[in-house]
Amino acid sequence: MFLVKAALGKIPLDTLVRGASLVNVLTGEIQPADIGVYAGKIVCVESPGSVPPRQAAQVIEAREKLAVPGLIDVHMHIESSLVTPARFAEAVLLHGTTTVAEDPHELANVLGLEGIRLMWAASAGLPLKVCFLVPTCVPSALGLETSGGEIGPLEAQEMLAWERVVGLAEVMDFLAVIGGEERIIGILEAGRKAGVVIEGHNPLLRGRELNAYLAAGIDSDHTFMEPEYMLEKLRLGVTVEMQERTMTPEVISALRQLPSDPDVLLVTDDVAPDRLNEKGHLDQVLRRAVELGMKPVEALRSATVKPARRLRLHDRGAIAPGKAADIVLVDSLESFAVDTVLVDGQVVVRGGKLSWCPGPEETLWGARGSVRLPPLCQADFQLRAPILEGEIQVRVIVSDPHTTATEEGRAILQVREGIVQLADDLAWIAVFERYGRSVVLSPPSSRRGQGVVRGLGLQAGAVATTYAHDTHNLVVIGRDPADMAMAANALIRVGGGLVVVRGQEVLALVELPIGGIMAMEPVSQMSEALRRFEAAAGTLGMHPPHLLMRLASFTLPVASGLRITDRGLVNARSRQLVDLFL
Amino acid sequence: MFLVKAALGKIPLDTLVRGASLVNVLTGEIQPADIGVYAGKIVCVESPGSVPPRQAAQVIEAREKLAVPGLIDVHMHIESSLVTPARFAEAVLLHGTTTVAEDPHELANVLGLEGIRLMWAASAGLPLKVCFLVPTCVPSALGLETSGGEIGPLEAQEMLAWERVVGLAEVMDFLAVIGGEERIIGILEAGRKAGVVIEGHNPLLRGRELNAYLAAGIDSDHTFMEPEYMLEKLRLGVTVEMQERTMTPEVISALRQLPSDPDVLLVTDDVAPDRLNEKGHLDQVLRRAVELGMKPVEALRSATVKPARRLRLHDRGAIAPGKAADIVLVDSLESFAVDTVLVDGQVVVRGGKLSWCPGPEETLWGARGSVRLPPLCQADFQLRAPILEGEIQVRVIVSDPHTTATEEGRAILQVREGIVQLADDLAWIAVFERYGRSVVLSPPSSRRGQGVVRGLGLQAGAVATTYAHDTHNLVVIGRDPADMAMAANALIRVGGGLVVVRGQEVLALVELPIGGIMAMEPVSQMSEALRRFEAAAGTLGMHPPHLLMRLASFTLPVASGLRITDRGLVNARSRQLVDLFL
Repeated sequence: MFLVKAALGKIPLDTLVRGASLVNVLTGEIQPADIGVYAGKIVCVESPGSVPPRQAAQVIEAREKLAVPGLIDVHMHIESSLVTPARFAEAVLLHGTTTVAEDPHELANVLGLEGIRLMWAASAGLPLKVCFLVPTCVPSALGLETSGGEIGPLEAQEMLAWERVVGLAEVMDFLAVIGGEERIIGILEAGRKAGVVIEGHNPLLRGRELNAYLAAGIDSDHTFMEPEYMLEKLRLGVTVEMQERTMTPEVISALRQLPSDPDVLLVTDDVAPDRLNEKGHLDQVLRRAVELGMKPVEALRSATVKPARRLRLHDRGAIAPGKAADIVLVDSLESFAVDTVLVDGQVVVRGGKLSWCPGPEETLWGARGSVRLPPLCQADFQLRAPILEGEIQVRVIVSDPHTTATEEGRAILQVREGIVQLADDLAWIAVFERYGRSVVLSPPSSRRGQGVVRGLGLQAGAVATTYAHDTHNLVVIGRDPADMAMAANALIRVGGGLVVVRGQEVLALVELPIGGIMAMEPVSQMSEALRRFEAAAGTLGMHPPHLLMRLASFTLPVASGLRITDRGLVNARSRQLVDLFL
Repeated sequence: MFLVKAALGKIPLDTLVRGASLVNVLTGEIQPADIGVYAGKIVCVESPGSVPPRQAAQVIEAREKLAVPGLIDVHMHIESSLVTPARFAEAVLLHGTTTVAEDPHELANVLGLEGIRLMWAASAGLPLKVCFLVPTCVPSALGLETSGGEIGPLEAQEMLAWERVVGLAEVMDFLAVIGGEERIIGILEAGRKAGVVIEGHNPLLRGRELNAYLAAGIDSDHTFMEPEYMLEKLRLGVTVEMQERTMTPEVISALRQLPSDPDVLLVTDDVAPDRLNEKGHLDQVLRRAVELGMKPVEALRSATVKPARRLRLHDRGAIAPGKAADIVLVDSLESFAVDTVLVDGQVVVRGGKLSWCPGPEETLWGARGSVRLPPLCQADFQLRAPILEGEIQVRVIVSDPHTTATEEGRAILQVREGIVQLADDLAWIAVFERYGRSVVLSPPSSRRGQGVVRGLGLQAGAVATTYAHDTHNLVVIGRDPADMAMAANALIRVGGGLVVVRGQEVLALVELPIGGIMAMEPVSQMSEALRRFEAAAGTLGMHPPHLLMRLASFTLPVASGLRITDRGLVNARSRQLVDLFL
């Protein structure tokens, strides 16, 4: 037991973090402390100047710094940052995140269990500790969309046997849970047998439906919160996971009024590369919580010891003897400006600079080539009507200008020679199944859904993306079928990404060759690429906030309003395919 | 998923607990609630009068009652109540305890892993949920005493694979941990591999030694607490487990002043049958905590949701959908007068009366016949001196009149014909190895330790016990060798227990045939038997409080002061055998 010997001072420490102000997440106090590290573990925490003096191979002077445990994020998707695990690690370690529970829901939709295995392998041995949750809703809407992979009870069971797999990820399909749908019941059973945590996602449930969902063993939620909803959930045993966008002064104030310390965590969920680059990661959620009135030390507890316990990772989450030496030195809890990060005792950030460099990433090359579509042509983007000439009424996806919400609208369009003509306030939208899993025989082609969309501001040209929740099929939106075909073909050629085309010219192309949703480049580069994409899209008239998220959400049949998949239009409320033509 | 259907109201509930005031251990609030139970689980918690009305096979009206989760005790020894698990269940269910983590340290000392297996089998299927912790210090003091069984790394590993085994029990031998002793290091390694909780016991450790002990992964303590010691431990990540005797207003006040909710649990440890009968179980610790100033709901959290999480029993500890229906109805948190207890949805206590009756207990018959000694005679209790005539100086075990503490004293005694003569303020004490494991060849006899004790008040006769921490060898204390022999032989004949003899007459005999430490009778009967034993001992002049604990602690070489085992006198501080004669 070398740890014991090192704690006793019989052998020298590997590292001594000297003179820090330790933010003790176990008692809520701040105390001056020397922290000793040996073989990756914290072995002693003691008052500065304890005698006899400690011997250490390396001393980190931490005066005027706060020492806090590495941040732990229980609900997030690396893919949302459009980068690989190594690039993600590079970015978030600088912000003090040392453990994440990755839900590879996106890559699972593209490549199924084999895709997850690649992600899992690619995240082994990184200084960022990447745990995994088993995606539970792949595809999200059975029968309404075609994904590249499926996760059922057998896949869940297999994945639960892997190392670093710590639970089931957000069970989004609460209708399936309440309805007793076979797939989700089997997955839940696998989770229960493995004795792991089961994460939830239940924005609208209250009362008996909420009770029923919880009775199935799913006991967390990270969706939009009103204080009243949040309190109902906390009282029923739900661990509330707050994202930046769900936090309000009212929510924080409601939490502070509870007599006992509630089960509240901070999480990031989806962080786009530009946001990650500019605002940060879980540190940003923590800063925001403090700004909104959460006590700083409670915010820190909600991002360290509490998530560690939630994930049952009892080896971390606090600066105490026996725990992993995941230690972050910051200027203050309010700024959370990260100076130094140790992971398992290794210094990975020093003076705010990364001292670790990701090696060549070979594993995820296996996830390339996922856009399996033949070149498309202009005719693929023309909408054929059931009449030859005249007027026809169609359903329209009406996009909210500020959020990812949609509604169902109507439009009366002209038909000429059997082809629907576009009105000025509309754009075409088409979704192509891109996995070669659903070939239509006559004429031979991939399955596709077609429709029209209002409210994007698009005046000309086309945009396309293979990053499109949740199945990540190829989505093309445009005013001009020829530009749409060019945009689609640009993405087919590079294996996926984002593209803007106008007048048969590619204005911007973001390549996402890994599963069509991730790139090998660093977050900063992806952030710049995304800006160029947004600027180019702006020249077409699209200036919405969260452009990528909005483009990527038209295909989300588990959201609300009218959506579109490769199978056609979907009424998200009734969960049914509906006809384009009325 | 019938749970989901029951929660939705699509099928009738098994039980509806109607109109209770639910003490919500998750938020600290008290709320009116109807609680629905199906298939042993809580499936819904909702406002009374929710519509449509619930259908239920059984309705329990709970108006004017508080509904709280069943109490959970993470540190205790069933054997200390001198009864079998079924009899223990019978007693503690009436007090609202529904889960215990049994540390079978005592029976393990008598019968090793086979003894634990019997205890484990005997506690299966009881309405009291009996989990097990692996005893880690059997015997407690290697080389200083002879036990009937040993638990090493292999036994620990085997036991950790059994169902209901949730961790390693109190690691008492902190010197072995700090010294890197092979047995304990191997056992800790087995616990770490199994990923279970490791319970501690470290009364005296501070500073570097405490850090070293914690670095070994042992992160709880339940020993005597000063506020300063307790705070040091909490800050270093120790879960503090408070017993009734360690709670003081100062300790409670120190806890209340911490900025964050600390890791504090309530536990019982050892509860003698008379105390269990008269005062109660974990409910009594809870009442005491509240009396001393702990907020009632925090005391309740420390006996429900917090211990559940400590033991990683995530299926219980709160009244919330999906949790086991372990529900207790009480009048108030201050009185904690138990009216009704449900375990896994089954009513086991109603109107303060047990509605469950233990069946015949056959398993533990296998633990009988553990006192393997031939009859003893008067000569076995005479102390031979190394001189024939004159005076000789001896070490004396000086017993504190109020506690189980001892000190080393001295006495000068007369020797006649080679036999030491007793002075008026002393009594003989002899400890016989009772497992047939250490036979001395010349003359053939069992190994024994002999000594003298001061401070018990014994004037005449003899007492004997086979319940003697931790090895439970046969301890005989007396003024008269003939009475001592008779007392010893009485216990040898019945297979163990407690006895008082005077003038060759047995004044009281408590039979403990199961391993020499437990009986098949109910707690109430054992309580009466213990009173008769104490009354009889009183006629010999012994009137100390906690008589059984004091008699049983002379043999505890891991405590402080001067102790005695079958191997002789032990200086507990230096952990060394010392000579009786100076």
